[in-house]
Amino acid sequence: MKNRTLIKDLPSVLGQTVAVAGWLHRLRDLNNFGFAILRDRTGLVQLVLTVEQLGQLKGLQVETVLKATGTVVKKQNKAGGTQDEVEIQVSELEILSPVVDVLPVEINKPEIDAQPETVIDNRVVTLRHPKQRAIFRVQAALVRGYRTYMALQGFTEIFFPVLSGAASEGGAEFFKVDYYGREATLTQSAQLYKQITMGVYEGVYGLSYSFRAEKFATSRHLTEFNQLEFEMGFVDDMEELMAVEEGAIREMLATVERECGDDLKLLGATLPPLGDRFPRLTLQEALQAYKDEGGVDELHEPDLSPAAERWLSTVWAPKHYRSGFVFVTDWSPAKRPFYAKVDPRNPENTLTFDVIGFGSEITSGGMRINRYDEQVRRLQEKGLDPAQFEDYLMMHKYGIPPEGGFAIGLQRLTQNILGLSNIKEATIFPRDVQRLRP
Amino acid sequence: MKNRTLIKDLPSVLGQTVAVAGWLHRLRDLNNFGFAILRDRTGLVQLVLTVEQLGQLKGLQVETVLKATGTVVKKQNKAGGTQDEVEIQVSELEILSPVVDVLPVEINKPEIDAQPETVIDNRVVTLRHPKQRAIFRVQAALVRGYRTYMALQGFTEIFFPVLSGAASEGGAEFFKVDYYGREATLTQSAQLYKQITMGVYEGVYGLSYSFRAEKFATSRHLTEFNQLEFEMGFVDDMEELMAVEEGAIREMLATVERECGDDLKLLGATLPPLGDRFPRLTLQEALQAYKDEGGVDELHEPDLSPAAERWLSTVWAPKHYRSGFVFVTDWSPAKRPFYAKVDPRNPENTLTFDVIGFGSEITSGGMRINRYDEQVRRLQEKGLDPAQFEDYLMMHKYGIPPEGGFAIGLQRLTQNILGLSNIKEATIFPRDVQRLRP
Repeated sequence: MKNRTLIKDLPSVLGQTVAVAGWLHRLRDLNNFGFAILRDRTGLVQLVLTVEQLGQLKGLQVETVLKATGTVVKKQNKAGGTQDEVEIQVSELEILSPVVDVLPVEINKPEIDAQPETVIDNRVVTLRHPKQRAIFRVQAALVRGYRTYMALQGFTEIFFPVLSGAASEGGAEFFKVDYYGREATLTQSAQLYKQITMGVYEGVYGLSYSFRAEKFATSRHLTEFNQLEFEMGFVDDMEELMAVEEGAIREMLATVERECGDDLKLLGATLPPLGDRFPRLTLQEALQAYKDEGGVDELHEPDLSPAAERWLSTVWAPKHYRSGFVFVTDWSPAKRPFYAKVDPRNPENTLTFDVIGFGSEITSGGMRINRYDEQVRRLQEKGLDPAQFEDYLMMHKYGIPPEGGFAIGLQRLTQNILGLSNIKEATIFPRDVQRLRP
Repeated sequence: MKNRTLIKDLPSVLGQTVAVAGWLHRLRDLNNFGFAILRDRTGLVQLVLTVEQLGQLKGLQVETVLKATGTVVKKQNKAGGTQDEVEIQVSELEILSPVVDVLPVEINKPEIDAQPETVIDNRVVTLRHPKQRAIFRVQAALVRGYRTYMALQGFTEIFFPVLSGAASEGGAEFFKVDYYGREATLTQSAQLYKQITMGVYEGVYGLSYSFRAEKFATSRHLTEFNQLEFEMGFVDDMEELMAVEEGAIREMLATVERECGDDLKLLGATLPPLGDRFPRLTLQEALQAYKDEGGVDELHEPDLSPAAERWLSTVWAPKHYRSGFVFVTDWSPAKRPFYAKVDPRNPENTLTFDVIGFGSEITSGGMRINRYDEQVRRLQEKGLDPAQFEDYLMMHKYGIPPEGGFAIGLQRLTQNILGLSNIKEATIFPRDVQRLRP
């Protein structure tokens, strides 16, 4: 829009005639004149309106899109929440787009007063609330930081497919697509595609879409979500993978800190501490600490309970390492997928890790099986039929280096960092068992 | 891998003992000694092997993954294609991963000698060929350049959903998903989601997935592809959108030029010229030029033929403007989707544009309808039932600014820039009517 001035820039053009454009945030009709609060992406400003201009707005509702031309003047009476120094004496008012229905939710209050599902139902309106808007600005910054780090390491970005023929991983349920009368599935995991590129680029990253048709309807489950993928070849120690992941998370949080300070303040969020180095614990060490220091005995569990994950990452790691993140390694083969590399020194262990990040698990990663005979044997041990994995095994036949990688759930990470109670709050257009819209 | 040296770095460690790792690219057994060519992501190097080391490789095939330790020495006899200055006198050889089947396609020649579909069937192997690898490095650089430009403008990245309930655009066919017994569809277009955010961020971008269940099986069609999306609010002239698109394309090509010089050389590709400014032609002006200078009369066609697109972008625009890109504007409402803004001064025209880029159309874009009453009327004129577009119309009810945007087909752009004959060559894991794998 030619000659439009953003609200945040108004103090620097005091005394001049400018045009501003945005949404009618609030309106006050004071008989012989009135005030309108206008909102654009950069802030709020008060417009001083004549009786005639108030007449133009008669019958129109908040959220109507306006353009106002006028003189920027020092503010007479300071009202809260708006651009504090200046206001605009309006000379011309133009209605760009009227609101034609009653707003389903009020968004001109500090908090949206509605149920979480109502907030999502009405994303068209509720996303405009500064706090909602801030969540997805932080999410975009996390992804930007991830890519910056990976590109600096010389890794190559890959664009993963969504439509898939065969199952890329056994077990959980797939969504089925009618594909010209045949059956296709939606990708559950980018694992196959990442591993294929190990013969080519040696280090790859990207943002994948994963689909899970499980019937969970909890605050932690989405049917469609994004993962920040990474895979690297010529790795002989899992520590090399953990070092990349730690570096990436540090750059992601640094990006948010640098670029989203106002968003964090608005959301009342404090970034998790990072310490000098994220601690590395084996699962047994983690369970032992939970017993000794947390007072809960889950020593004989094969996994970390949600409570143990929370305690480790929000109590134990911050206390001992000033870190909100902790690596937990050495998982049993039964708890890991068929491509996880079994520890050659101990068949009851895999060379894999999770990252527990400020509340819950945000990553699984580890070394993969790269030799054909070993992968065939592992599938059989898992009770899977290698003939069903022909596409997957093809790459093992033709020489894949020792390699590994990880995937970070983007919405989960955003949820944990911002302390949101439901993962759907960290998803701009969430999909769950009930929801396919908007 | 600790202490691994990349092949490109070998000349700087002449005389030292190093470890290299990669794929057995070629092998020459000369009775009492031999040569192996090793390939990693950075190049090729010759390994000088003893009889014993040759014995270790007995029965193994090219593409076996090796690690070799040895001394970097000045090369004795210069063979083509390898790191030219140095070779390695091997002291220790380790087989990291053997090839266990006959390679389906040979990849150690300057060109892969196989049908295009065979090349894709065997992506696991063929992607390793330097020319294949180069294509997707260029593609990643295009996306990197796009995001760099958009972030610098202060726009916000959005992550679009794939699963959708209702149709986001009328007309063409959708893929249907069995969603817990209900019907879901795969998104055909990010249009709805981009427009929703116009009430929030005013300027957004992102990489979307689009799915089209049309039964085309041509060199120009994929069933799944990516689009570089853009949408901007408070626009009062289409030229503002074209300026953003031109800026983005320039940054994308500058990134490729800066970071992928070797890839372009290998592919024998020359970047399209950009000139000072991409020419802007109305459709009528374009057809008139095609008649006057190209000698083909398609003046009464409502569209550009593929031949006209090719001529305009590879002959006309380079000749007159030293540009491989040309904007063509002023399309008839019948040729544009229901959300395209009709020219208020001429109901037979829309405020829309295409970019024809070095061969064929790579973008559609334009101003959108932002007022509720106008959109309802337009749907009816198109013979569509507004009741079917309830989700879409919801945002128009609550105040969307005058706005517009565009989407650039990523695979199409890559194909045109690199002069590839089939769009599938520009897609790492292509999906078409027949193909769902790998």
